[in-house]
Amino acid sequence: MSVLPEVIAANAEYAASFGDRSELALPPARGFAVLTCMDARLDPAKYAGLSEGDAHVIRNAGGRASDDAIRSLVISYKLLGTKEWFVIHHSDCGMEFFTDEVIRGLLANSLETAALGDQGFYDVGTGPGAREGDYIDWLTISDQATSVTEDVRRIRNHPLVPARIPIYGYIYDVKSGLLLEVPTATEVGRAA
Amino acid sequence: MSVLPEVIAANAEYAASFGDRSELALPPARGFAVLTCMDARLDPAKYAGLSEGDAHVIRNAGGRASDDAIRSLVISYKLLGTKEWFVIHHSDCGMEFFTDEVIRGLLANSLETAALGDQGFYDVGTGPGAREGDYIDWLTISDQATSVTEDVRRIRNHPLVPARIPIYGYIYDVKSGLLLEVPTATEVGRAA
Repeated sequence: MSVLPEVIAANAEYAASFGDRSELALPPARGFAVLTCMDARLDPAKYAGLSEGDAHVIRNAGGRASDDAIRSLVISYKLLGTKEWFVIHHSDCGMEFFTDEVIRGLLANSLETAALGDQGFYDVGTGPGAREGDYIDWLTISDQATSVTEDVRRIRNHPLVPARIPIYGYIYDVKSGLLLEVPTATEVGRAA
Repeated sequence: MSVLPEVIAANAEYAASFGDRSELALPPARGFAVLTCMDARLDPAKYAGLSEGDAHVIRNAGGRASDDAIRSLVISYKLLGTKEWFVIHHSDCGMEFFTDEVIRGLLANSLETAALGDQGFYDVGTGPGAREGDYIDWLTISDQATSVTEDVRRIRNHPLVPARIPIYGYIYDVKSGLLLEVPTATEVGRAA
């Protein structure tokens, strides 16, 4: 059973009451951007109070400050005028439960989905896998406060990022829905 | 005026009625992932009918199949079991209005925000810029149907992506809210 018909039906319903959203401008109306995790439990529009048109939302596995996230952030301010940025990781993130070595081994063994047990992910598939994973930095996380702080630091120190843009570091708590400030990131992320 | 107090206030309101969302599991309940653009006008949860816990959402400038998006998609199926993927670009995307040469020139000139005129983006800042932009592939778009198809093709042909995963290519129309299928992407994205 494909999800495709459900998605298309939900989309038709959304479009049917689209109203004046057709008039929204390209640049984010509230002038900020959020970098956060792809995790299914996170809805940045809901947890940060965004309406359509308000803010850029960049998401990847972990909410990491990858080269691609930085590409997106630079476009966000240079071409579309955002002035404040949030880096938001979260509790119970899948990126905490494996290492580069683990996922490389799993992928080399098979391309089937692994299972998550008490000891982390383990493979249930039997070949053929692929070794391409050896060449990817998976950007895993060992501690959320550290990963938020390091990602804010990487963005802060990037030569294309103006010193005037404040960068806020938070952890989203999947048990409460609350955004919890990361004080070490606040230090690093201050605008000059 | 910072947006920070507004975001924190909206978050407190969201968390106050969090309810049984605290019980959501880590793997996406509906088993799929969406790769789409960071554009502020797009709310994938709304346009595709997602509740918290349903699906992975990956977003970057353009919704492009960057190395980082592929990193995220591979984690999405290998560790968290998604079985269908959507690549969704959109009309009136900022990525259509410049080229690598344009943004490199703008960044070399200044780190101030550029303006968008009839002829595309033009710089209003006066130094100091930085040349780091010369080393970044900005993944600009000249035609949405082509970019969707090429991105579906890149994912389809990646050695870590199993042939059994269907990849659907769509364009979100910012004037109507509708998802429009890209037939050339459908051809490429079919599961084996």
